[in-house]
Amino acid sequence: MAFLELNYYSQVLGMNQPMAAILPEQSGYTPDWTNDQLQDLPVLYLLHGMSGNQLDWQRKTEIERLLRQTKLAVIMPTTSLAWYTNTTYGLNYFDEFAKELPVKVASLFPQISKKREKHFVAGVSMGGYGAYKLAFATDYFAYAASLSGALIEDTNYPGFLEMEKPSYWRGIFGDLSRFPGSENDIFALAEKQAAKKETLPKLFNWVGQEDFLYEANQKAVSRLKKLGYDIDYHTNPGEHEWYYWSRRIEDVLKWLPINYQAEKRLS
Amino acid sequence: MAFLELNYYSQVLGMNQPMAAILPEQSGYTPDWTNDQLQDLPVLYLLHGMSGNQLDWQRKTEIERLLRQTKLAVIMPTTSLAWYTNTTYGLNYFDEFAKELPVKVASLFPQISKKREKHFVAGVSMGGYGAYKLAFATDYFAYAASLSGALIEDTNYPGFLEMEKPSYWRGIFGDLSRFPGSENDIFALAEKQAAKKETLPKLFNWVGQEDFLYEANQKAVSRLKKLGYDIDYHTNPGEHEWYYWSRRIEDVLKWLPINYQAEKRLS
Amino acid sequence: MAFLELNYYSQVLGMNQPMAAILPEQSGYTPDWTNDQLQDLPVLYLLHGMSGNQLDWQRKTEIERLLRQTKLAVIMPTTSLAWYTNTTYGLNYFDEFAKELPVKVASLFPQISKKREKHFVAGVSMGGYGAYKLAFATDYFAYAASLSGALIEDTNYPGFLEMEKPSYWRGIFGDLSRFPGSENDIFALAEKQAAKKETLPKLFNWVGQEDFLYEANQKAVSRLKKLGYDIDYHTNPGEHEWYYWSRRIEDVLKWLPINYQAEKRLS
Amino acid sequence: MAFLELNYYSQVLGMNQPMAAILPEQSGYTPDWTNDQLQDLPVLYLLHGMSGNQLDWQRKTEIERLLRQTKLAVIMPTTSLAWYTNTTYGLNYFDEFAKELPVKVASLFPQISKKREKHFVAGVSMGGYGAYKLAFATDYFAYAASLSGALIEDTNYPGFLEMEKPSYWRGIFGDLSRFPGSENDIFALAEKQAAKKETLPKLFNWVGQEDFLYEANQKAVSRLKKLGYDIDYHTNPGEHEWYYWSRRIEDVLKWLPINYQAEKRLS
Repeated sequence: MAFLELNYYSQVLGMNQPMAAILPEQSGYTPDWTNDQLQDLPVLYLLHGMSGNQLDWQRKTEIERLLRQTKLAVIMPTTSLAWYTNTTYGLNYFDEFAKELPVKVASLFPQISKKREKHFVAGVSMGGYGAYKLAFATDYFAYAASLSGALIEDTNYPGFLEMEKPSYWRGIFGDLSRFPGSENDIFALAEKQAAKKETLPKLFNWVGQEDFLYEANQKAVSRLKKLGYDIDYHTNPGEHEWYYWSRRIEDVLKWLPINYQAEKRLS
Repeated sequence: MAFLELNYYSQVLGMNQPMAAILPEQSGYTPDWTNDQLQDLPVLYLLHGMSGNQLDWQRKTEIERLLRQTKLAVIMPTTSLAWYTNTTYGLNYFDEFAKELPVKVASLFPQISKKREKHFVAGVSMGGYGAYKLAFATDYFAYAASLSGALIEDTNYPGFLEMEKPSYWRGIFGDLSRFPGSENDIFALAEKQAAKKETLPKLFNWVGQEDFLYEANQKAVSRLKKLGYDIDYHTNPGEHEWYYWSRRIEDVLKWLPINYQAEKRLS
Repeated sequence: MAFLELNYYSQVLGMNQPMAAILPEQSGYTPDWTNDQLQDLPVLYLLHGMSGNQLDWQRKTEIERLLRQTKLAVIMPTTSLAWYTNTTYGLNYFDEFAKELPVKVASLFPQISKKREKHFVAGVSMGGYGAYKLAFATDYFAYAASLSGALIEDTNYPGFLEMEKPSYWRGIFGDLSRFPGSENDIFALAEKQAAKKETLPKLFNWVGQEDFLYEANQKAVSRLKKLGYDIDYHTNPGEHEWYYWSRRIEDVLKWLPINYQAEKRLS
Repeated sequence: MAFLELNYYSQVLGMNQPMAAILPEQSGYTPDWTNDQLQDLPVLYLLHGMSGNQLDWQRKTEIERLLRQTKLAVIMPTTSLAWYTNTTYGLNYFDEFAKELPVKVASLFPQISKKREKHFVAGVSMGGYGAYKLAFATDYFAYAASLSGALIEDTNYPGFLEMEKPSYWRGIFGDLSRFPGSENDIFALAEKQAAKKETLPKLFNWVGQEDFLYEANQKAVSRLKKLGYDIDYHTNPGEHEWYYWSRRIEDVLKWLPINYQAEKRLS
């Protein structure tokens, strides 16, 4: 696999944006792909959580090695600390992810498929929220996975607001009392999408049993099921840590329709 | 010179922060420095403008080549779009630059001097504002240079607010009517520092005559002189573009007390 | 422009190979390209000299800034210290550049044109040798530029062998007495190509008058002209240094059929 | 932890050399280190195998995450395909690793300890050979670990020469019939060191039972024990793959005198 780091210019944000990517390539260590066959590639967007950036998945998991025999491109963008959201301070990260990024990726890497059924998104923590948000509010993604996702119904969820200063939360979501039902409420987005009765994105969910977001995820899964979403739900003992995400992302890869080729493990 | 890109963790911002750096090293292409002599190094912080990041100086100028025979470390951090300012949305970039970054640099690169007289800062546009702000509001910098700096007295300066949305400006500076005299007003900071009668930082200023910030800089220079600052001021025909900054940074290098060794140019 | 660093896997070399690239993109700072128009892009391969690698052009020149209004992709690969040559120690860098790299680039960046008339190559010093070698020995390049190129007729050229140990030179070129006429002799390659009477690549040549390679280039230009090559030759006072190459690469950009949009310079 | 990529200039090799590094830093996710305490740091050099480079450990394992609560610096250099050896073609990688690199690291990162007892080296495959070689032939390392190391007594070891062309092997090791007893024979180096009766480096060894190097390692361990080396030897079912090395490096971390703080794993 080729590993890339790049900076592109985001017109939506008005600044250079970093991104990392993994691209399948012909090599002695991959299956017998010819370069010519590396077209119309399925793609997985991997989203980071709070405090992270576009390099998190590379630095904290083994994602590249896991994928070395599977024909899948990976795009790792960054929202900085901004929740994949159109903030109240003028930085429109939701528009960046929902509108500009797919066009930019199609332009920079034309070998990546433009078809919805080949577009997948997964994220951890804040990025789990982001993954579901993009899946519910756009038509780009056929599969979305949340690991320890911040799938909250409102911002009063125990432990949530404590993570940062009030000014920070207002900056991201505006008036917090209006969060439920807003464009940042993933359940409102899920409902709206479900009402339109089109093909809904398939969902994957994992959360650790020691995670403060465990209850949120339990409730989220049940609510999304009721809305008609097909959701593959798992839980284990576990905390809000990359160790678990590094292991669980392999379950996501097995769940995706990508003919995942797992590595052989004799011990 | 060694060129580095890195991510460190900022506790002030609560996230991974990228940085680039240039470090003098013993090599066949540098003067006869032994590795042992590369201690207590003078350092120049280079600040980017709006839309840029920590790679701007490397991508758009020849800074590394210019410095190859001069014993100077260069630190290139990033404020993203946040004006080296403690924003109203909880991201305290001023604290990051004024408090955490110097300690972090001292920890990661102990060969860099901790003495004020060996600390310099320069920036372009928003980064010119940042360079003066850091020089006025901290005790870290002995020399500060602004190239086409956004040295505005208030945010109503013609053309200024038009660059971005109102929500963006409120996010950075809060209530704009209170900007003059605030902790974000570099003239207020300059006055406060001058009143304390200590050794003032030496200043360098350049602006192009076709720049919308030309008048702002004219006025800034005159005001800072009156406050007792020693300011080396230059202007030429020129616009708000990296071409000029790439050429003018060499004037800054000649101005700094670093025994700058200019490259030979036969044509 | 988007700036990329990547590692791909080279089957010819049997190892991960780094590469840097610049890709035109839609942005507020570029002309009115839509992402859709960024197809069939012309491409310039930039080759480094001895002691350098894939980052040299980015670190020592302003190439990215110069190109920001011109629709041209740039690929910056590396040969390490191996002269773009099939070495005697089993690392076949010529094959890498002549055979694998074009296919790899076409696979990773399908938006780059596959047409010879849109493929250009330029290099400095060892890379000038490499640029002409690739232009003479492959059918990929329509234009080739050498800046201070090591365009030697044999390895006894004054000052040449002194640059490294004999074991190094034998490693690269084998028995040096057989260099003239070999697959590493660019004049032999130029002759062979000219004899086939197809469309020859257009050539650009610059060398500084204080360069130890000045005489070699004088002679090379005259010999290549006699073989029927259209060669645009320039010289100035100058040494074997990146300062000159940084300035002269702009002349190369003006010479290429890329509708180069030079930046405005008021002073 | 801070993650760094850099290029330094190697005078021994005559070229820019890339390196990656992990440096402990004060952060909300690390123990209560103050920046001041991050001095005299123990360091682990991690060496890659054939086809890899300085990014292998970062791309294929979780080394950075594993170390996030342990005060240990990591240096990841590269030998390209050259076996940490003074090659016959003039590139002296052994000298680079044995002489220049320790001085360079001390210069760039003075916070890293200069004491032998705080210097450790580990590698995989070709890098396992390199780790032992550096431990036997220099006085820099107190602990050395080989994972699936190419610990061969002579190059006729079954399967060894088949990995590459004869010209490649001659380039690295010269006349292969003279390999035993030469400066590239780790057992000769081990003997010479043991004869001097100083404190010998402690050794760690792991190899997979399905690895073609399994017999070599069995024999190596027994031979090194006889020479008086303290060697911690392990084996499991396993092949010559990064999956195993990613898991086994944690055993190495537990074995090193670094007070390794393992992450909590509830499932």
